[in-house]
Amino acid sequence: MTHEILPENDPQLKSFIAVAKDHDFPIQNLPFGIFQTNNGQASRIGVAIGDYVLDLVALCDAGLLTTADINVFNNRYLNDFFALGKPFWRATRQTVSELLRDDCVALRDNDELRQRALISQRDVQMLLPFKVAGYTDFYSSKEHATNLGLMFRGEDNPLLPNWTHMPIAYDGRASSVVVSGTDFKRPCGQVLPADSETPIYSASQRLDTELEVGFVVGTESKQGDAINVKEAADHVFGLVLLSDWSARDIQKWEYQPLGPFLGKNFCTSISPWIVMLDALLPFRVAGPKQEPSPLKYLQCTNDWGLNLELSMSLKTPDMQSYEQISATNFRHVYWNFCQQLAHHSMNGCPMQIGDLFASGTISGAEPGTYGSLIELSWGGQTPLKLSNGEQRCFLQDGDGIQMRAWAQGQDYRVGFGKLTGTVLPANNKYEV
Amino acid sequence: MTHEILPENDPQLKSFIAVAKDHDFPIQNLPFGIFQTNNGQASRIGVAIGDYVLDLVALCDAGLLTTADINVFNNRYLNDFFALGKPFWRATRQTVSELLRDDCVALRDNDELRQRALISQRDVQMLLPFKVAGYTDFYSSKEHATNLGLMFRGEDNPLLPNWTHMPIAYDGRASSVVVSGTDFKRPCGQVLPADSETPIYSASQRLDTELEVGFVVGTESKQGDAINVKEAADHVFGLVLLSDWSARDIQKWEYQPLGPFLGKNFCTSISPWIVMLDALLPFRVAGPKQEPSPLKYLQCTNDWGLNLELSMSLKTPDMQSYEQISATNFRHVYWNFCQQLAHHSMNGCPMQIGDLFASGTISGAEPGTYGSLIELSWGGQTPLKLSNGEQRCFLQDGDGIQMRAWAQGQDYRVGFGKLTGTVLPANNKYEV
Repeated sequence: MTHEILPENDPQLKSFIAVAKDHDFPIQNLPFGIFQTNNGQASRIGVAIGDYVLDLVALCDAGLLTTADINVFNNRYLNDFFALGKPFWRATRQTVSELLRDDCVALRDNDELRQRALISQRDVQMLLPFKVAGYTDFYSSKEHATNLGLMFRGEDNPLLPNWTHMPIAYDGRASSVVVSGTDFKRPCGQVLPADSETPIYSASQRLDTELEVGFVVGTESKQGDAINVKEAADHVFGLVLLSDWSARDIQKWEYQPLGPFLGKNFCTSISPWIVMLDALLPFRVAGPKQEPSPLKYLQCTNDWGLNLELSMSLKTPDMQSYEQISATNFRHVYWNFCQQLAHHSMNGCPMQIGDLFASGTISGAEPGTYGSLIELSWGGQTPLKLSNGEQRCFLQDGDGIQMRAWAQGQDYRVGFGKLTGTVLPANNKYEV
Repeated sequence: MTHEILPENDPQLKSFIAVAKDHDFPIQNLPFGIFQTNNGQASRIGVAIGDYVLDLVALCDAGLLTTADINVFNNRYLNDFFALGKPFWRATRQTVSELLRDDCVALRDNDELRQRALISQRDVQMLLPFKVAGYTDFYSSKEHATNLGLMFRGEDNPLLPNWTHMPIAYDGRASSVVVSGTDFKRPCGQVLPADSETPIYSASQRLDTELEVGFVVGTESKQGDAINVKEAADHVFGLVLLSDWSARDIQKWEYQPLGPFLGKNFCTSISPWIVMLDALLPFRVAGPKQEPSPLKYLQCTNDWGLNLELSMSLKTPDMQSYEQISATNFRHVYWNFCQQLAHHSMNGCPMQIGDLFASGTISGAEPGTYGSLIELSWGGQTPLKLSNGEQRCFLQDGDGIQMRAWAQGQDYRVGFGKLTGTVLPANNKYEV
């Protein structure tokens, strides 16, 4: 399908719902999620507009949104909606966009329906928006890979020889993916104390997170088939913000030779709103120059860089609000999601509806643009100084992280909302 | 629950269906699977007895097997059956065992029902028996880990320091798990030619497999909760044979630092029959001595070693039948499945109904007992000599692998049937 800019991307569009210039959810965005209210109704698909959730089941009931089966919308997960294919996603977004315009009377002038279909976001609970089929975590920021290499392996080979030839990744654990706002226990595991050759059982003392963007596969591929890099974007429904919580001490002791495992798979958080790829079309930019030139199966015009501002903030139990600790941009990421998908499927690995593929930590070149605490505190050597006088190298119990992402347009932005998570004390069953 | 030997394990039990002494499916086994016939009936749960499949839906229809919902049995997957819990699994197996005994008339003397409920295995198609929720591949054979370490890293550190302290593993890709008999295309990928610093795109030239046993999780755990090693067996429904197809050249170039990815996730095959843990209770043995003593959370009586004979055979296109290339025993595996499950969940990672956890390649100490071609041909240096004069280091197009596993009792065996897979030519789209 075409990835030219759509009528729904028009910066001039206005909704009858007032949306401030710096709000994440103008009519140009229309991200999808699954919500639940306290009135006993079943969970269902909603679209964010300003401070409201638009209930797609209510629109179907009113005959304003056509579907062969209302249970596609009246659903715990978006997966059945994904299964109807990209033309259906696009048509649904187009209809929603039309219904929300300031010059469309169907919803605007129907008080009863507006009351029913537009619910304040304060009154809903957002749920994990899709059943995560498979989860893969890439490692596609050159700056991050270099920083981690320096800390884990030293100056000699910070970036391993394969890195510039392929989007390195590992299969993660889908079962541990949760929605924003789900607090989680500090993980326990085996760690190797400094100057010891014998590991101990301990709650992680180097708990970190990684600022990432994930993309969600809406169209599957068959086992044995490789997805062409030029067709990869047609498989993608949209993007989420992603917090890849990481226990660095557990990771360091376990990761050779088979890669990260328990240091990662205790919890991964995603934003409740999935921003459709269609909403981000105006924000495509050239990605970083790729040198050496990638192999043919990874060659593309490389204009799927996305100009997304990203920020990460921290709140300790002693703080009243989140304080920004990093700001970076998704456009720095070396391998784009089309290359990631072409690479992942090149061996015939089947892609599934509901697969979640994370970018890897997004770090820029400067210290304030690093997307993880281990980089920001340089391996725990230079603590972050917070404005209330506290310091942090890694996360302490009660600490909360907030991530944000948005594409900045002229007088509007297309944003992801907030992704948050707070560390609960460990459930340290085996402490001796 | 107790893991004492059950009445259904009694070696004296006889079925009215004749089963030879060396048959995998006597009344003491009763493995579960999903089958389909050509008569248009939907896929459903069956139990293997001798050369027959016992149709559990037919037993329900006849009132001989009670269930709240027949769709638990009349199902594409076993997952809903798993969800009913271990007491239900055990009760179902007990009922089936009773109905198949030579002194029970209910099925034996009901010609019409016997015709309907007992179908020749030649007339059914076996399907993937459960929806694989998550897939994890362990690395728990000390002999295999040492051999691979010697080949990948050399004499200096064949076994990394963490190996004797924990069951090393990586998260695999559930979407690529298929049932025995599913042939698959040779994977393509990036490989680094000898004496080159630049990778090329190629079909794998070092295609291998690993002889493994997998266990299937039937009872989930909550995120944040660790499963106690002493309770781990209660989470396990049963075991399957598993062929972990591996592209060694792709794996070697990609696996640092995040572990195996495309070298593994193109295809993994499992047996169609799941042998219940209950059927293997008489074959528990002490596992290998663990030195150094593991940390407390991994400490158990270590009597969950399982005395399973294993064999791997090869058939080239020029051969009429499979020729055995390896014979080993599951009891050699260093870390048992209870330790694997306790370790996997120690950080709070939630276990799901339908998770598949593979043992890792099962190799013994002698060359003829190695569970992979890369070990049997010692890195491709000493080809296997087949009886027809052919040689093999790795798999060529058209080559088939057959794996078998069984526990040997007095005058009976509890077996897994055959696991087979054949290599199809690569679908080499990007060849230049």
